[in-house]
Amino acid sequence: MKKIAIQGVHGSYHDIAAHQYFKGEELELICCSTFEEIFESIINDQEVIGMLAIENTIAGSLLHNNELLRLSNTNIVGEHKLRISHCIACLPNQSWDDIKEVNSHPIALMQCRSFLQAHPSMRVVESEDTALSAEEINKNQIEGHAAICSKYAAQINKLKILEEGIETNKHNFTRFLIAQSRIAENKIIPQNRNKASMVFTLPHKLGSLAPVLSILSFYTMNLTKIQSLPIIGREWEYQFYIDITFSDYEQYKQALNAIAPLTNDLKILGEYEEGQYNV
Amino acid sequence: MKKIAIQGVHGSYHDIAAHQYFKGEELELICCSTFEEIFESIINDQEVIGMLAIENTIAGSLLHNNELLRLSNTNIVGEHKLRISHCIACLPNQSWDDIKEVNSHPIALMQCRSFLQAHPSMRVVESEDTALSAEEINKNQIEGHAAICSKYAAQINKLKILEEGIETNKHNFTRFLIAQSRIAENKIIPQNRNKASMVFTLPHKLGSLAPVLSILSFYTMNLTKIQSLPIIGREWEYQFYIDITFSDYEQYKQALNAIAPLTNDLKILGEYEEGQYNV
Repeated sequence: MKKIAIQGVHGSYHDIAAHQYFKGEELELICCSTFEEIFESIINDQEVIGMLAIENTIAGSLLHNNELLRLSNTNIVGEHKLRISHCIACLPNQSWDDIKEVNSHPIALMQCRSFLQAHPSMRVVESEDTALSAEEINKNQIEGHAAICSKYAAQINKLKILEEGIETNKHNFTRFLIAQSRIAENKIIPQNRNKASMVFTLPHKLGSLAPVLSILSFYTMNLTKIQSLPIIGREWEYQFYIDITFSDYEQYKQALNAIAPLTNDLKILGEYEEGQYNV
Repeated sequence: MKKIAIQGVHGSYHDIAAHQYFKGEELELICCSTFEEIFESIINDQEVIGMLAIENTIAGSLLHNNELLRLSNTNIVGEHKLRISHCIACLPNQSWDDIKEVNSHPIALMQCRSFLQAHPSMRVVESEDTALSAEEINKNQIEGHAAICSKYAAQINKLKILEEGIETNKHNFTRFLIAQSRIAENKIIPQNRNKASMVFTLPHKLGSLAPVLSILSFYTMNLTKIQSLPIIGREWEYQFYIDITFSDYEQYKQALNAIAPLTNDLKILGEYEEGQYNV
């Protein structure tokens, strides 16, 4: 039995991602209402593994989660990419004409904008969580409301699905990271380490980043993400979060050695196997 | 009289930023509930100038606004940096002991986490907007509630300020951009163009970014922001949003010419004067 801390409740996209990633294993989900709680949960119990969204192809990066990873004593040990598909669901005795209000997380609502624009009679009310919206409609038997959530959330909350695949853009993927305490006893060792996430700082001066990226490129490292962040209270310096993929782990280690003298506070957030896009 | 479209209501940080940036001018504020509405407002009336938050030192980038700038037919014509300081305010007849619930925007609540943790008896309820929370307490004379908002929002809504400066980190700045229609008749021409924002795409292959940054550095361009974004539906390509500052406009134009052949879909989002941090 693995203990997995997720953000959200049963039926959330985090739940689906956890069950896909740890396929075939028995999971005990620890449902957290914030990403901070996931990390608290890992710190309080080294057996707990965290699963957290880091980026969505439509909504962009969850920048704060980068910070949480950097500040926590955890390692990224895996990555999972989940195709996000929303449905609209209501109580089984309700139909389209009954629905006066639709509830969901602001990001999910944003991702279904075209659908909502085509149904202007429904009042759109933001909620904390997609699956929680479904849960509340079922628990309180709320007539006239529908939730935008995963098909799975609709099913486990005994809701009737009015329409599936209502997200505007079908290239909707969320990238999740799997994080484990650095002092965990049962360390997850990725079988194939072909991706790494790291953070470093650079003086805010002309051309300090270009040589670092040039060196990574000379060592055939492939940059898949770069993100600068101003450092709070140190306006003259910048923090860079980068992800690289590689085929040769030894060469990756050499590349790290080569960039170390040109960067400050270089921290490896994790070395893991790149997730695949499964449609 | 200038027409300025902002996100939020009177008393919002957007309102404060607009009045600081256009100091001494008479403004007609067009209060929009979403950033999309700001752009719709600019498209519908070329006289309208948009003011939109793009980055906060604590909360990070508003990635979606980069996209909106790219897709809209607007130009960035200015930048303003605003120090964000929150206060907690309630009806004049209320005091600390009366407050059972505090309302504000999720980002503002996050920025006041230490304060809220020190006052665990207050229920924290998210709202759409900081200034709107203040407005609603005043309008509906809600006893027992307090809003987290700007001092200015508290004042114009006749609320009593219980405490000022309750944000956890004092290095809390929001960077705003001023956007104007590219076909506006009364174009704002920045007096001193020393900053530019641009977006381009690169093939997702080894080392395509490093030469671009090297060239910018050879031309003494100073990179102040870089952000990669996966391109929806084109998983093998990446979009890069970058900001650069420079002292020589001619050299900047030369640098653009030099990187153009190495990038795809290079689009200049605007050339403007860099905003200053005024504490």
